[in-house]
Order: sequence, then C-alpha cells, then structure tokens
Amino acid sequence: MKAANRLEGFRSYMDEKQVELSLVWEPDNQYYLSGFRAITYSRPIVTLISRDSTELIVPGLEEVHAKEKAAVDRMYVYYEQIDKSHKETSYLDHLTKLLKKYPSGSRIGIEMDSLPSSVYIYLKEFGFQLIDIGRKIIEMRTIKDEKEIELLKIAGKLSDYAISESLKHARVGISELEFDSYGDKLLLEIASKQYAEELIGYENWTCSGVTRSEMPHLYSSTRKFEDGDMVVHSRQVWFNGYRAENERTFFVGTPTEKQKDLLKLAIEAQQVGMEIIRPGITAKEVDIAAYKVFKKAGYGEFVNHRIGHGLGLSEHEEPYLRFDNDLVLQEGMVYTIEPGVYVPGLGGYRHSDTVILTKDGSYSITQYPRDIEHLMF
Amino acid sequence: MKAANRLEGFRSYMDEKQVELSLVWEPDNQYYLSGFRAITYSRPIVTLISRDSTELIVPGLEEVHAKEKAAVDRMYVYYEQIDKSHKETSYLDHLTKLLKKYPSGSRIGIEMDSLPSSVYIYLKEFGFQLIDIGRKIIEMRTIKDEKEIELLKIAGKLSDYAISESLKHARVGISELEFDSYGDKLLLEIASKQYAEELIGYENWTCSGVTRSEMPHLYSSTRKFEDGDMVVHSRQVWFNGYRAENERTFFVGTPTEKQKDLLKLAIEAQQVGMEIIRPGITAKEVDIAAYKVFKKAGYGEFVNHRIGHGLGLSEHEEPYLRFDNDLVLQEGMVYTIEPGVYVPGLGGYRHSDTVILTKDGSYSITQYPRDIEHLMF
Repeated sequence: MKAANRLEGFRSYMDEKQVELSLVWEPDNQYYLSGFRAITYSRPIVTLISRDSTELIVPGLEEVHAKEKAAVDRMYVYYEQIDKSHKETSYLDHLTKLLKKYPSGSRIGIEMDSLPSSVYIYLKEFGFQLIDIGRKIIEMRTIKDEKEIELLKIAGKLSDYAISESLKHARVGISELEFDSYGDKLLLEIASKQYAEELIGYENWTCSGVTRSEMPHLYSSTRKFEDGDMVVHSRQVWFNGYRAENERTFFVGTPTEKQKDLLKLAIEAQQVGMEIIRPGITAKEVDIAAYKVFKKAGYGEFVNHRIGHGLGLSEHEEPYLRFDNDLVLQEGMVYTIEPGVYVPGLGGYRHSDTVILTKDGSYSITQYPRDIEHLMF
Repeated sequence: MKAANRLEGFRSYMDEKQVELSLVWEPDNQYYLSGFRAITYSRPIVTLISRDSTELIVPGLEEVHAKEKAAVDRMYVYYEQIDKSHKETSYLDHLTKLLKKYPSGSRIGIEMDSLPSSVYIYLKEFGFQLIDIGRKIIEMRTIKDEKEIELLKIAGKLSDYAISESLKHARVGISELEFDSYGDKLLLEIASKQYAEELIGYENWTCSGVTRSEMPHLYSSTRKFEDGDMVVHSRQVWFNGYRAENERTFFVGTPTEKQKDLLKLAIEAQQVGMEIIRPGITAKEVDIAAYKVFKKAGYGEFVNHRIGHGLGLSEHEEPYLRFDNDLVLQEGMVYTIEPGVYVPGLGGYRHSDTVILTKDGSYSITQYPRDIEHLMF
C-alpha cells in the first residue's frame, strides 16, 4: 500500500469518528504515513492530517531532508538561530497558528499512548475534544503490504548472514560485545555490496552464562564466554526501517545434559508455535500452545514472557501473542515466535524467528538452523 | 552523588512542592534515581517515590534483573503467563492498588514532557492534582558528579579509539556503514580487553558527499565515498549508560579550496565555542559566539542548529546552548560543542566534542585531532 492509499484509509477512519484534524507524534507512525523519518531526540517533529491536506512541522536542521522525503502538502520550519529569531523558533509557534483555525469543541485526533502529557494539556486549552487515533494507526500497521514484506525479507536475510558470522567466532574467551561485532561488520559489508544508498541498522543483545542468560533482556557486556556457557544472542536488523528479529541460544564448550534438554525444549516450543500460527487462529492460542510444551515438561513456572510480538517499523509492535489476547490473526501480519524458559541455576533458553502470515499458514524470513547440532561451539 | 543522595535531593523538592508521590516514567530518569535500566519497548516500568519509600513495577521478564540492580524498597511484578493470570497481568493492576492509598486531591508528581497522555488521563480520574517533577530531575541531571565524570571520560576515550580506527579506513569506494563498522569493532575489542563485565554501546551516523552532508542528521547508508567527498561522521559511545559525542568532518580524495575553507571555518567556530565555555557564562553567549564566526564569513544563513546540547545518560540532554537560553552555566555541566554550517552545493561541515565544565573553564573528553591536516584521506 502506498502512502497515498494509507492516507485514504486513515482519512476514512477520521471521517467515521468525525475527527477534523489528526496530530501524529510517534516517529514510526509519521514515517508510515508520510515517508519521512528523522533521527529525533530533542526537536519535535509533527505531522498534521486533515481531510484535505497534510502538513509537517520540522526543525531547521531537517528542512532539506524533509523536502526530499516527506510526502506532505505543506511544510513549516522552526529555527534555532539568532538571526531568524523573528521567525518561528519552536514547533509550538507553528502548531498554535495551525490549531487556531479549529474552533473550540473541534474533534482533534491524537495518539493517546505516545503523545506527552504536556502536549495533551496544551491541546486541551484550545477546548478541543481529543480523540485517540493511535490505535487505528497501530491496527493499519499490523497488516504488511507487498512492498513492506519485500523489505522485511531483505532484513531477515541480512540477519541470517550476521548471526552466521558471529557464530563462526563463538569460543571461550571472546566477549559478548566482540561476538556481536563480527556479525555486525559482515552484515554491513554484504549490505554495502548488494544495495546502493539504502539505510540499514541493527541492534544486538547477548546474554552469556547462567546468571546473565536468566535475564531475557540485557545489553551486551564485556563479559567473556566461559566453558559450558549457554548464550542467548538476540539480533534485530532493519532495512529501510523494516525489522527482522533473529535469536539463537547456543553453547560454548561442554554443556550438561540438563542444559541440552532445556534448549531442546525451547526449540520444541518454538516449533509448535511456528507450526500453529496462521490466519484464523487467535493470538492467545499460539501463546498457550507453546507454553504447554514447557508446562508439560515441568517448567511452566519458569516462563516469564509471551511467545512473541508484532514486528515491522518498531522493535515491538502490537498486537501481542499473549495468553489473554483474543485477536484473530490475519494474512500479512508479522510476528516473532520466541518462547523462552529461564531456570534459576540452569540459565535461559530462547530462539526467535520472524514469520509472515500467508493465506494458509506462515513462513519464516529468518533461516539460521535452529537444531542443537548447529549450536554447539 | 550516590542514588541515596539523589533521592534525598529529589525528596526535598517534593516536600517543597508538597508532592506526596512521584511517578517516574522516563527510563533514563528511573536509572538515575534507582540504578536500574532495562531494555524497554512494550512493557512499562514505573518507579514510584514517596517521602518514605521507593517502589518499582516491572514485567516478569525483568524480575531477576531488577532484583539485582534496582535500589528500591519494594518491587511489584506483573505477569504474561496463563498460569499466573490470577495475579497482576498489567502494570496498571499494581499502579491502581498503589494509587488508591492516596485520596482525591493528592498532589502527585509526573514528568509532563514524557508521560503518555493515556497515563495522564488515567491519573486524572483519581482526582489527583498532577505536578510536573520532570524539570527538577532534568535539572539535577545537568550537574555531573565525580563518578559520572569518570564514566564519561571512559566513553570519550573509547570514542577516540573508534573514530581513529574508522578514519584509518577512509577511502574512495568504502560505504558509510562499512566506514562506521571499523571503529565499532575496534571499540568493542579494546573495551573487552580493558573492562570486565561492563555495558558499552554506540551509535553512528555518517553523511557523505555534498547532498547527504547538507543534512545534519541522517542514518548511515550503503552509499560509497567518492573522490572529493566531504564526510560528516558522528559517533556517540556510552559506557555504563554515560555518553560521549565525537564527530569529525573529513575529506576523501581531493576537496576544492572552497570546501577546505568551509571546514576551517567550522573548526574556528568550534574553537571559539570551546574557548569561551565556562561557569558563569550563559548558554546563549556560547551559541552566539560561535555563530558570529560563520556570520562574519558570510555564512550565517547556512547555520541551522544550535552550537550544542547537554550530554549524559540521554542522546541529547537539556539545557541547550541556544541563542535564546539565559541559563548561567555551572561547574559539572557537560556539553557538546558542535557548530555546523550546511551550504547548498558545497556540503556540510561540523566537528563535535564533549566538554566538561570545571571551576575555571572546561576540558574536552574527546581528543581526536581537529585540524584539517589530520582529516584529509
């Protein structure tokens, strides 16, 4: 779906909810609707969507970039330079002018879950009725179109190269961060050879040894792998914004039989999840099916997270594959399948792959081998 | 300042503002006050600070991690596992119970600039008076203590290694991303040798050639360096959370005299900024001093950002060195000094260094040579 079609869909929703203007704040949502993505920290960027126009407010240092990338009708720039102090110097200067066109009582759309409270209070002072449009954009983003799937597939392939390269260097004495860096470097070399002027990035987290692997989410450290370590290596790679997640648990040196059994169990739970996921099934059925594998083996109490999350432009996207989510899955949704078990004194075990739902089932865009024979170093 | 002293200072402020409970949402603020930092996407973590206790709400997958790291009095865990569905399954389950102790009308502290609107609305429904405590935490964070400065210095040193290594590989035909990756890899190798079990990370942005370097903030791409390119390479390295920023503009192949003059101008503006910054001067004086260098040379109109931002736990921290900021600078503040000029058809030019304000002046924790002779490849 092109940006224009997305806008059309979004505007139908605005009509239905009688929303006159939507203020889109969340960077991934803005990218989704306008094609413009900036590195944003302290300078707000706002996309405004009304029934007949789209407007963008950007800081001066994004002016050239936004002109090149943003599919919007009008652009307003604010400045941070003394000789331009007679112009607008804050996004609020522009926003206030634009909002004054709307009378008190107007229905204005905002993303309740990401718009900061201070902006909410500012909007309230205009006397507007504030309506959540964030859930709608999230819902639209769940179904990926062909172009998005193409980007996701490239990200998946690149993540396989990276994992494969890091694993070639798995050995006692290498640090988590060094381990990550081998895959990072090869990934960027391959991407630079295969793709011209594209944006690529990645994130890694490696948790090695019993103590650290028991914690599912940790930043990689300078800790060095030791003999008998289980290591949970997590990687996301993005290609022009679209992300694939690829995680493998592996052993360095000689694991115990018990540890091998736990990895096999996590692999089995993942297989169950990957086999069952398809359009028509509910999110919770997928989660519970994998959980039962752990439970049956007596490890249910050591499961501390859902089986997976949506994926696309953001690191985690709704909706989630969680035990209490009745959502019926659809073709075009993208999910990580990553059941994990974390046993005190025995470590953590989790693979993650990224699957795309097709008409009849699903396929994985991440392909590094999952079986234990390929994961002993 | 240790976490305990920080809490003491923060509680004095709460007393002064008659705030009974503060709800801290922003991850860097939580880390600053509790010592606990998680990789957080879709599962909220909340720190609650009252006059006599500190409480933390975490998802199940952070339970072990939080027990290890968080300096709080009590911890509440929420679960996403069907066999724990009789317990709390959302952060709101805990938060609601904890907030019910406070009668309608209680003064509750929140970070207005980061708390999502949906949480603000939820808190309003309790009948609370909501008071901004975010500005106070930002203010506390501006003055770095000895321990923080020690971490910043390490980050600065690591960033120098990285920039130096990337620049060794600067040549026509290498992509922006490959260029970045040399520095990344060496950085992680050196850090792994020198530091045991520490957390280290980095972010890079490289903009090469006339068109891309004119845009100050872009993600690195697979574009390959060409003869005559100016390249703006930006890097932040963090060590246990604390960040140094280190940026250099350099040439690949043969630049024109005009391009060399523009880089010299940016270097001169930076020198002026680095020489003038000290306690007692205002933020705006530093910005304007550097701006005047560009203006005098006839390039004032091509300046599109302030001279620098605060630095520490976040990529950008307030307060900013901006033309309209009357803040008087103090010892212990940390700033980037990064005046830039972006001329259509001639490219962008900007160095950035990270300086720490001392009693009498300042020093830079990033040291890679700034002169043009070291920046021609």
